[in-house]
Amino acid sequence: MTKKDITEEVFFGSERFIRWRDDDGAIPRGTVQLPDGRLLYGYPRIGRILHLAQGLAAHFGQDPFWAEEKVDGYNVRVIRWREKLLAFTRGGFPCPYTTDRVHHWLSAAPFHENPELVLCLEVAGPETPYADASPPFVHEDAQPFAFDAMRIGAPGFVPRKDFYALCERFGIPTVQRLGCFCAADVDRLYAILARYEQEGREGIVFKNEMGTRMVKYTPAATSLRDLAVGAPDLAELPAEYFTNRLLRLALALAETGKAPEAYAEALGKALLLPLSEEIQAFLRTGKLKRTRCCRTHTKRAALDLLRHLRRVAHGRHIRKISLVRGQDGLWHLTFAHEPASLSGLLHHLFSGGAILD
Amino acid sequence: MTKKDITEEVFFGSERFIRWRDDDGAIPRGTVQLPDGRLLYGYPRIGRILHLAQGLAAHFGQDPFWAEEKVDGYNVRVIRWREKLLAFTRGGFPCPYTTDRVHHWLSAAPFHENPELVLCLEVAGPETPYADASPPFVHEDAQPFAFDAMRIGAPGFVPRKDFYALCERFGIPTVQRLGCFCAADVDRLYAILARYEQEGREGIVFKNEMGTRMVKYTPAATSLRDLAVGAPDLAELPAEYFTNRLLRLALALAETGKAPEAYAEALGKALLLPLSEEIQAFLRTGKLKRTRCCRTHTKRAALDLLRHLRRVAHGRHIRKISLVRGQDGLWHLTFAHEPASLSGLLHHLFSGGAILD
Repeated sequence: MTKKDITEEVFFGSERFIRWRDDDGAIPRGTVQLPDGRLLYGYPRIGRILHLAQGLAAHFGQDPFWAEEKVDGYNVRVIRWREKLLAFTRGGFPCPYTTDRVHHWLSAAPFHENPELVLCLEVAGPETPYADASPPFVHEDAQPFAFDAMRIGAPGFVPRKDFYALCERFGIPTVQRLGCFCAADVDRLYAILARYEQEGREGIVFKNEMGTRMVKYTPAATSLRDLAVGAPDLAELPAEYFTNRLLRLALALAETGKAPEAYAEALGKALLLPLSEEIQAFLRTGKLKRTRCCRTHTKRAALDLLRHLRRVAHGRHIRKISLVRGQDGLWHLTFAHEPASLSGLLHHLFSGGAILD
Repeated sequence: MTKKDITEEVFFGSERFIRWRDDDGAIPRGTVQLPDGRLLYGYPRIGRILHLAQGLAAHFGQDPFWAEEKVDGYNVRVIRWREKLLAFTRGGFPCPYTTDRVHHWLSAAPFHENPELVLCLEVAGPETPYADASPPFVHEDAQPFAFDAMRIGAPGFVPRKDFYALCERFGIPTVQRLGCFCAADVDRLYAILARYEQEGREGIVFKNEMGTRMVKYTPAATSLRDLAVGAPDLAELPAEYFTNRLLRLALALAETGKAPEAYAEALGKALLLPLSEEIQAFLRTGKLKRTRCCRTHTKRAALDLLRHLRRVAHGRHIRKISLVRGQDGLWHLTFAHEPASLSGLLHHLFSGGAILD
């Protein structure tokens, strides 16, 4: 990618933003330049530790750190722009869906009081336009979980205590806040992670007060669930999606002293059953139908969302199936996102085609 | 790769050969130009079908084809050069090991009678310098299995009937020859593959008389075995090694109507147990020790082999452990080939390092 290609124009209505498509020195991917010239910095990638005890000791030494739930959804940054809340995806696109929903999810009051506020949310649930996985504690639709605050024009994060105070004062829903720990408390964290595995929670993010050090960790059950969620997309996802999670699983079992034999069947099922179901569905219908649903307040937002999804589709065919008003007063959009590669590959193979591998 | 880089000089003793490092129009990778200018054509890549019935019908229509065992070893081409047999690897390197052994494995008589003869062998067994997998029917050391014949200076293959006659006349050991079939005989082939799965045989290669059409197929058990053999090399092998075999497994089960649930535990074990063993070994010793053994007639061949392995090592550290004369009169070489990436990755992770994935 040449320097010139690193940024591109993106529009929301008639407003023109510039987004960073890739890291650019100190400016991370997903950074957005607002029409007034200020920068909304991209949310940084968080390093993953695969050995909890060693990882915490290596990253925080004897210093305290905050532990917070890592929620399995999609990451957006919300700002107030021209009197309205506006949400940007991790990649720096204005998100028609989140922007439509966020007015009802969040009060504008904290933004009135802090005009530079950037609220970082994970949006999760069985009905989002972006995620196939959903935390079990969101039973329908989607919900926001705030996990960080930034300021427009400034890299870095609002101090955690200020962020927590802000959320409490304005009743902003957050991810589970587990409190302050240090590396010597790792046994308490193992216990929380064991509970999280039971509850189907994804993992934990560890942050120091200023957010200058952050790492994440996910337990064995999450790797298994990720593999099962990804298996139907075997031909679409990078192959490393699978090998990374396999390594995470093996290391998590090694650290916690669990016998790998006890996880073998679950691992095999996670990989093989969803993939086999896709193949059977393909054999029955000749195609792979993958659908997602989500709800919006306006019909316009749903149509804008479809346009956005087609733009970032990465070889998936996005097709509207239905858009109807529900009893909850929201527009219910159902769309297909057919994975072109697996579909094409299965068609080739079931027609007797050969591959050079 | 520019045109210039496609070929390179390789030496055997003082003799200089040119090998093709990549496909070059009609000249396949692994082609070798002999010092007298003639070409030893590379062994072509064989397409893989993942649906046996459809694949045979698509590739052979109603025409007959030969079915032969696919043996799990390494592929070499043997010629007679300056009164001696000389073996080249698939990549076109003169192979010190195979060249040393082949004089005792094969009579030179067929080469005297056919000076242009190129004999294509799979060499397999628990002790080869290249392969971690071994067919269960080779109990020690290594053995050659002829599966094709070519002629120096000519692309393409000797007709199968002539190849079979040659092998019979000179007692050349071959892969199992299963006979002549047509696509309608697929049920007989399913039965053979079921037996092959029991016997731990890798699969079947299908070829027409002139070898202008060739495809290969491997059953479910082979995909599982491949995954188990590859799992300790999770960080060295391309991630697609794993996803390809997972897809092969799922498709083989779908075609033969086997319940994926019945294979889940075996799949999980194939992936997780060897990887977990590597991790435990790393935790015990701080490194990953991977060794191979092989036997040669001369000490010189063993040392030449080590030099060759270092040249093609692909980031593995090759280290001689021992080279001693056995009671069988052969030199027994044991060498380590430490996988640098997984070793480095585990060291990083067990020191608490983070990864961006």
